[in-house]
Amino acid sequence: MKATFYEGQHTFSVAEKELQTPAKGEVRIKVAYCGVCGTDVHIYHGMMDKRVQIPVTIGHEMSGEIDAIGAEVSGYAIGDKVVVRPLDHRAEQPSDKGFSHICKDLKFIGIDSPGAMQQYWNVPAFTLHKLPTETDLQLAALVEPLSVACHDVRLSGLQAGEVAVVLGGGPIGMLVALVAKNAGAKVFISEVNPTRIQLAEEMGFTVVNPAKTDLVEHIKAQTEGFMADVVFEVAGVQPTLDVMTEVAGIRGRIVMVAIHGQAKPVDLFKFFWKELKLIGARVYEPEDYEKAIELITKNELPFSSLITAIQPLTNIQQVFENIDKNPDGMKVLLDCQN
Amino acid sequence: MKATFYEGQHTFSVAEKELQTPAKGEVRIKVAYCGVCGTDVHIYHGMMDKRVQIPVTIGHEMSGEIDAIGAEVSGYAIGDKVVVRPLDHRAEQPSDKGFSHICKDLKFIGIDSPGAMQQYWNVPAFTLHKLPTETDLQLAALVEPLSVACHDVRLSGLQAGEVAVVLGGGPIGMLVALVAKNAGAKVFISEVNPTRIQLAEEMGFTVVNPAKTDLVEHIKAQTEGFMADVVFEVAGVQPTLDVMTEVAGIRGRIVMVAIHGQAKPVDLFKFFWKELKLIGARVYEPEDYEKAIELITKNELPFSSLITAIQPLTNIQQVFENIDKNPDGMKVLLDCQN
Repeated sequence: MKATFYEGQHTFSVAEKELQTPAKGEVRIKVAYCGVCGTDVHIYHGMMDKRVQIPVTIGHEMSGEIDAIGAEVSGYAIGDKVVVRPLDHRAEQPSDKGFSHICKDLKFIGIDSPGAMQQYWNVPAFTLHKLPTETDLQLAALVEPLSVACHDVRLSGLQAGEVAVVLGGGPIGMLVALVAKNAGAKVFISEVNPTRIQLAEEMGFTVVNPAKTDLVEHIKAQTEGFMADVVFEVAGVQPTLDVMTEVAGIRGRIVMVAIHGQAKPVDLFKFFWKELKLIGARVYEPEDYEKAIELITKNELPFSSLITAIQPLTNIQQVFENIDKNPDGMKVLLDCQN
Repeated sequence: MKATFYEGQHTFSVAEKELQTPAKGEVRIKVAYCGVCGTDVHIYHGMMDKRVQIPVTIGHEMSGEIDAIGAEVSGYAIGDKVVVRPLDHRAEQPSDKGFSHICKDLKFIGIDSPGAMQQYWNVPAFTLHKLPTETDLQLAALVEPLSVACHDVRLSGLQAGEVAVVLGGGPIGMLVALVAKNAGAKVFISEVNPTRIQLAEEMGFTVVNPAKTDLVEHIKAQTEGFMADVVFEVAGVQPTLDVMTEVAGIRGRIVMVAIHGQAKPVDLFKFFWKELKLIGARVYEPEDYEKAIELITKNELPFSSLITAIQPLTNIQQVFENIDKNPDGMKVLLDCQN
């Protein structure tokens, strides 16, 4: 089998590797597709060299089929289509209060242990979610990021008829917007990148370019002063932090999806004044995976528009180099089947 | 009747004024006691000269009895003990979504219109809450700030058995701590002022002085690593903003009680990582007043310990000067009866 390895220094290798028999409690998956996540790009940029164990196979946005089954695994058969929820919560403690998806000693599979950018992947069976037989395996590589979006929208408490503003139209922002729209919200996307604006508009969204249009005034006019019920901060930059508290209406909920590496100024007065809520949201819980699988399997939303390119696994080096050259792109999948 | 007036320039006057017949929909209250709020001190300091209409009678933390009743007021009789919920929401709009207590065009009675630091006070009947006949009118002057605390605790969703950390042991912090403890929480107060520490300890609270003890390590040890379920940020300073995200456990809720006049650095990464919630809370709703009246009337909590002094209304100038000289004090009441 072929496997890829991040070697440090912006470099991936591709090597032949022996197929491994799945250990007790594990299955071996024949990986179909694996998407490139922003975190994977961070790893490629060397930003996580202290955390990953170089050389390491990365990747966690995948789909595949069960190829072999280890001892003490029940409920799965060879050939089952699956996706992996890449959270290893086996070190969970009582003080995690049952929130295993964000437990203090959580290990992220594909970062802290080997990932899916290889032809075959051995994983613990507790990470699996079964896909219906009719699910498209290309689209199923979007289940993991889509689950993030499902989690964000679920924690926001979004109700049909509410107004949602998504700050940032990258892959996660687009998925959040799709899930919010599917839940019956009136969705606005705020994005400055022309290529992403065009894509979002093609997908049927109302997009505001805050560099050209006053976002707050626009939302005010479009909502008769009600402003946003829910704001998703996905962009992770100071201008979106500044606007998130402006664009939210009374008792608005702001979901913090973006990762802010350092403390940043927030208008806390507006939280007090309008009784806003800030809701931190990280990864997903099992029900978010089930919701994402349902949406992907139904395939009624324009998920395929988010797939910018599909490249052979062995092109991994070029794929990551191209992502750096083309920051407008959305989701690139590695085809791990050949 | 005697009335007091803020005249600007750190100056109050006391003057005789004609009793006014209550207008339609209003009652006249014979004011018993009126507490001095931090906002009143801000006004005295000239911080709100642009908002108040000098000369103005301020004050909103009051108790009293109905003295006269205007046309079209029902359900009240002369002699009824009452407190006023000083929110005039008559300019409420649909886009306020029914949250009248924080509606965009809210007028605060005692700031935007005359307040209670006078012997008789005419107010709209919709602001009234009736007190039981047995309620102590001195303690009842605490109903307004206690309602703030009831609102904060209610919005936090605090459950019996949870751990609450109150950052700041001033009057509102102490009331929040009392309400949280009464709701069955294990309460810690973080405070640096020795006088306030002593008072809080006399009231039965566990107090941590973060200038001497590492608050985060202390809470960690005391909670077996669970940390706080709910944090109340009442102090309004950068160190409490820095610690609030540290001291909160997984899915902890942080209630923003303090008023932060400008944007300040917040560790948003911790909101993401631990899925924290920040909950803005402002003033109160009718049910918070009812809860506060119930607590004050039962008088099972050490409310009287929070009353630092009771001074005649005519001493108002000296009262405000003394508050500036003695920042350790808690609540000073003006006796408006003579």
